[in-house]
Amino acid sequence: MRPNFLLAIALTTLLALASTAAAADPLPSWNDGQTKQTIVQFVEEVTTQDGPKFVHPAERIAVFDNDGTLWAEQPMYFQLAFALDRVKAQAPQHPEWKDQEPFKSVLADDLAGVAAGGKKGLLALVAATHGGMTSEEFEKTVRDWVATAKHPRFKRPYTDLVYQPMLELLAYLRANDFKTYIVSGGGIEFVRTFAEPVYGVPPEQVIGSSVKTRYEVRDGRPVIARLGEIDFIDDKAGKPVGIHKFIGRRPLMAFGNSDGDFEMLEWTTSGTGPRFGLIIHHDDALREWAYDRESHVGRLKRGLEEGPQRGWVIASIQRDWKVVFPFEK
Amino acid sequence: MRPNFLLAIALTTLLALASTAAAADPLPSWNDGQTKQTIVQFVEEVTTQDGPKFVHPAERIAVFDNDGTLWAEQPMYFQLAFALDRVKAQAPQHPEWKDQEPFKSVLADDLAGVAAGGKKGLLALVAATHGGMTSEEFEKTVRDWVATAKHPRFKRPYTDLVYQPMLELLAYLRANDFKTYIVSGGGIEFVRTFAEPVYGVPPEQVIGSSVKTRYEVRDGRPVIARLGEIDFIDDKAGKPVGIHKFIGRRPLMAFGNSDGDFEMLEWTTSGTGPRFGLIIHHDDALREWAYDRESHVGRLKRGLEEGPQRGWVIASIQRDWKVVFPFEK
Repeated sequence: MRPNFLLAIALTTLLALASTAAAADPLPSWNDGQTKQTIVQFVEEVTTQDGPKFVHPAERIAVFDNDGTLWAEQPMYFQLAFALDRVKAQAPQHPEWKDQEPFKSVLADDLAGVAAGGKKGLLALVAATHGGMTSEEFEKTVRDWVATAKHPRFKRPYTDLVYQPMLELLAYLRANDFKTYIVSGGGIEFVRTFAEPVYGVPPEQVIGSSVKTRYEVRDGRPVIARLGEIDFIDDKAGKPVGIHKFIGRRPLMAFGNSDGDFEMLEWTTSGTGPRFGLIIHHDDALREWAYDRESHVGRLKRGLEEGPQRGWVIASIQRDWKVVFPFEK
Repeated sequence: MRPNFLLAIALTTLLALASTAAAADPLPSWNDGQTKQTIVQFVEEVTTQDGPKFVHPAERIAVFDNDGTLWAEQPMYFQLAFALDRVKAQAPQHPEWKDQEPFKSVLADDLAGVAAGGKKGLLALVAATHGGMTSEEFEKTVRDWVATAKHPRFKRPYTDLVYQPMLELLAYLRANDFKTYIVSGGGIEFVRTFAEPVYGVPPEQVIGSSVKTRYEVRDGRPVIARLGEIDFIDDKAGKPVGIHKFIGRRPLMAFGNSDGDFEMLEWTTSGTGPRFGLIIHHDDALREWAYDRESHVGRLKRGLEEGPQRGWVIASIQRDWKVVFPFEK
């Protein structure tokens, strides 16, 4: 055979291999590099039957924080934006709010004033916007808000601000027989309204903070009444408690972005056998936001300092994500 | 063709049909009759694609009470037997129990004395036998007990006293893409230790009563510490609350046996679209036990009175179950 012909064959083969690899890449929005490689290698190892690190599908549980991990959390937690919008929408029925904190500050768009109200103000806000209705009424309120509210910077629905690389990761893990769970500091019923269409995560795989509820039969019709009182805070040390309560076994993989996820990663990665922890570092002010140690929202300090020595992967949005939001594609 | 030959063909066909039907029967331990027919018809309707009652697999949630529905509950709740055994096992380390109720009565095998302690005595019993250890330690204690304890009447492990017809029903529903959940008044971590091997129900599909827990790092090792305080009672009106909290959608089918399951069946069957509720009536003193309105354990009164007009099926163990326990086969 002539050398040209051999070269042609070699080139064709290479192109074919390259195109197969591209077609098979389950994480196209992740740049090639150590982060992506570490994820894929872990998943391949625990799913290789007869391999030394094989894990039975029943034990393949992956837990994801929501705010800052699956969708954005700036300039404020999206659920806080929901609560502020609800105060404004309900204000005509509550003339007394004009002189009552934290509502007065909310109506004046004075976020510093809202923050000054501290825990007491926040609880009053939760009670007024998240309690005093049935679970069905609350669900409808959230759905309506999600369908109409727009993010101030991107002028798009909040559910557009989900991270494309994380959507691919969720799908990749499910294709490998993982059960994917959301473990959010946000409200369980808030996140459940969109988790299935947006993330492919069914309501029963969403864990979150909650208000107390009560079963009542009203005029012969049973309802779940949402009370204005906090039942459970699914944040920090609450995350492993929530995981243990709802799932009852230790996850294999955990993904977070702030120190609120520290204990979840600690609990996950201290289990026996192969375990995986990853922290997303928001370091891309151009495409998203850059914040960590000094941020009020999504503060990340301990995770950056202790994560690497604990074997956790620190993913950089700037370096590791080819695409951030689905609408960029 | 000769009539004899035709007859032979007809007979062969009939026999073949009969044997196919027998081979395909997913509920062989249920006697033919209205109860079995109603169950099968419901499942066929909600799984018939393009049928008027089709339900998407994601919505196919079936919830089962445990005590008296999946396994027996006489002469006392099996978890109470566990608690009493634990008191006896721990007594040498607690000499003070000899003079302290409810422990004094437990150690004297005086059940009436234990009962006389009321709620206060019961909470002390829970704290002493279900709290003050890590979740891993508790799990091991339950596993050891399940492996060694024997039921007083049948002289067999308690996990032998599961109902064969219900095991078949669980498997039948899962084969039809249902997610099967246990919603027990018993302890969530107690039931989780055996739910997967015994019922094929993974820990994340077990809902139950719970004690408060706390995440702690002890000498660098994270644990879930079980506190001696009740967190949630998953009984009566607590069952729909637990279902809503853990699953976040209304079940399609609910199975119970006592008035502790009334609200769970009410919540389930008051949903829109096709819904199914069934109550097991313990009316077979010979093979199992006969009890209902007057029983302290598994009392069933309101369900018997209101169930039929609410469209709930009342299953009779005597009439509907060919086999009660797997060891009878």
